[in-house]
Amino acid sequence: MRGESWLDVPDDAEFGTYVLPYGVFSQTKRGDAAPRKTGVAVGDSVLDLAAVAGRLGEDFTPVVASGSLNPLLAAGRPVWRVVRERLTEWLRDPSYRPVVMANLIPRADVRLHLPFEPADFVDFYSSEHHARSVGRMFGAGGGSLPANWKHLPVGYHGRAGTIVPSGTPVVRPRGQRGPGEGGSPAFGSTRKLDFEAEVGFVVGVPSELGRPVGVDDFAEHVIGVCLVNDWSARDIQGWENKPLGPFLGKSFATSLSPWVVPLDALGHAWVVPEGPREETFPYLRCGGAWGLDLRLTVRLNGHPVAQPPFSTMYWTGAQQLAHMTVAGASLRTGDLFASGTVSGPEPDQRGSLLELSWDGSDPILLRDGSQRGYLNDGDEVSISATAPGPGGSHMGLGEVTGRVLSST
Amino acid sequence: MRGESWLDVPDDAEFGTYVLPYGVFSQTKRGDAAPRKTGVAVGDSVLDLAAVAGRLGEDFTPVVASGSLNPLLAAGRPVWRVVRERLTEWLRDPSYRPVVMANLIPRADVRLHLPFEPADFVDFYSSEHHARSVGRMFGAGGGSLPANWKHLPVGYHGRAGTIVPSGTPVVRPRGQRGPGEGGSPAFGSTRKLDFEAEVGFVVGVPSELGRPVGVDDFAEHVIGVCLVNDWSARDIQGWENKPLGPFLGKSFATSLSPWVVPLDALGHAWVVPEGPREETFPYLRCGGAWGLDLRLTVRLNGHPVAQPPFSTMYWTGAQQLAHMTVAGASLRTGDLFASGTVSGPEPDQRGSLLELSWDGSDPILLRDGSQRGYLNDGDEVSISATAPGPGGSHMGLGEVTGRVLSST
Repeated sequence: MRGESWLDVPDDAEFGTYVLPYGVFSQTKRGDAAPRKTGVAVGDSVLDLAAVAGRLGEDFTPVVASGSLNPLLAAGRPVWRVVRERLTEWLRDPSYRPVVMANLIPRADVRLHLPFEPADFVDFYSSEHHARSVGRMFGAGGGSLPANWKHLPVGYHGRAGTIVPSGTPVVRPRGQRGPGEGGSPAFGSTRKLDFEAEVGFVVGVPSELGRPVGVDDFAEHVIGVCLVNDWSARDIQGWENKPLGPFLGKSFATSLSPWVVPLDALGHAWVVPEGPREETFPYLRCGGAWGLDLRLTVRLNGHPVAQPPFSTMYWTGAQQLAHMTVAGASLRTGDLFASGTVSGPEPDQRGSLLELSWDGSDPILLRDGSQRGYLNDGDEVSISATAPGPGGSHMGLGEVTGRVLSST
Repeated sequence: MRGESWLDVPDDAEFGTYVLPYGVFSQTKRGDAAPRKTGVAVGDSVLDLAAVAGRLGEDFTPVVASGSLNPLLAAGRPVWRVVRERLTEWLRDPSYRPVVMANLIPRADVRLHLPFEPADFVDFYSSEHHARSVGRMFGAGGGSLPANWKHLPVGYHGRAGTIVPSGTPVVRPRGQRGPGEGGSPAFGSTRKLDFEAEVGFVVGVPSELGRPVGVDDFAEHVIGVCLVNDWSARDIQGWENKPLGPFLGKSFATSLSPWVVPLDALGHAWVVPEGPREETFPYLRCGGAWGLDLRLTVRLNGHPVAQPPFSTMYWTGAQQLAHMTVAGASLRTGDLFASGTVSGPEPDQRGSLLELSWDGSDPILLRDGSQRGYLNDGDEVSISATAPGPGGSHMGLGEVTGRVLSST
């Protein structure tokens, strides 16, 4: 898409001029006290949205001039569309070059923050390949799925207060690890620290208590997607999780990518999902192509260790949203719901070490010759993704990273 | 305690002059647009805290003059102590009569709101009597507890965005109900709508990510308690909850009492808890009398149906807090963690219809001659509590109510 803009985007830039993702930054040259501002990533720069708010055609200052994306999220699809259309026009029409160039800040000079204030966090479990692997490892019935799994998108609430921006170090958690056969539980640092590569949907427009949101209203409520690393301590999780599900094994940190990629940028990525469309309850019937052809890459210390294909998910974001609200739960601006671990059918498409190393029993080999069952202190995990863009191109969706620190 | 104050508190008032609970109100005479203010309940009135903030000895205006308790919560125990000491002095010393009387608003003229903005919501499962009843009804091993239950306070995250103030109607949720033997699941209104009588702890002072909070720091972080009705749809919950725990069966509404009763008012209620003190992991060892002798009463359409004793809980709030943070999860101002259903050893001390009616198989009889397995449309549930006060008195802790509306 470089040809459609007067802006020369470097080949190695994370985002071209089509993605136009939203984020929150501060200028590092101005020190720790620098104000947070909303921005749009383009090429190797960030466009300061607050600075150009008055020129977006209407006065969007209240929407984009705070230090959080929340007001823009709450503004709704008509505003999202206008802002994106204007920015697209500015990048195509050279007469806007002066206003754009005057408000571009090099990415190297900014620090990125959480793009919005998370309200509630829900994590689903919507990859059939992942759920079957878990069933094969731990289930009574071999690779069988839980009885409810194909009837509804299984999910649970996570801790919103420990969602951290990409780059935040993750301290190896301590806690109770389950006993072996007949033994007693032990307390100490987790021995099974894992990542989970996920895609998160960001809710902009709230909904009323007692009023379910239909599958077809997905794009009215969801502004876009982020990448999520749902760090997991498998031994803590395995001991605590019956009967009420995951708690401390998941709540010590959940890393979020800094850029919210608008659904409007994903027009070439929609695919027919693998999951049910007609043979399910009406509130989960999804006529459209609501799956997304996102291709994730997980790197461990820079080595690619998995390439999970999001197109292989069984349940879609639209179905997850409809299910989450069907009993009457309301949505708030800033709600984040994530897909659950994205795993494809192939061994190198699995989005967690639990699956890649088969709970540590079959360690993976990194290019430097070292092996991993689970994460070591000092390991850095990064999850990135691409999606089909216009004209057969591929566009980036950003990256979420984090390094493991030893227990304190 | 009436003798210690110049203020004449009516016998039927919810709170005497000792409790001094914090809440948020608006004046109904000023219409829906009336601003929200923080207040303290005393007798049949509310003292407008914002109006007297400047006279509290220091200028506490920033702390008490917003429409939310969150700034007061964040201010910490030294401020909580000074504010309470000054208010106590005002109510004892007749020379403060003019300033108090000028800023008292009749309770009949105020509307009460959520007292704070909930951050994360965690619900525990800390009554052994409740957990054993659930085990007897549904467990494989008769009345046995889950293997982890006596090693750690089992808990999970709930939906903070659907915490509603007392008095908010609760729409009967719809969703997938589990199949009978070998059948298919059905979709529709829940047939097993239940209450759960719980005590909630309100976090004021936040903590750092990666830094566990010790049991002995409980009172530095927790400002006080509320009463909680964790409404539950048992048939939805029973179908969805494996393997990741409760989700839609709990997230449609959670009702919260309007007044936060300070820990400083509960000095006469501390008791040695039933649960472990020395024979557990060090981070859960609780030397002090960290149980609370709160006596709950559940009324259904005005008829008392249960009197659960909070003193019979196995795990205490201090242990729940220590466990919640031991893996590194941080606290935020406004976090709410609830005890789980409070049930005592006697049949009339059970805090849910699940237990009172044995999952509907043994309906309870109300005084009007009607029976209940689970809640009917139109039913009103109220949960109130008392605690030992000074000089052998009993003090109220307020009430949380809600009426069931039919599905929409």
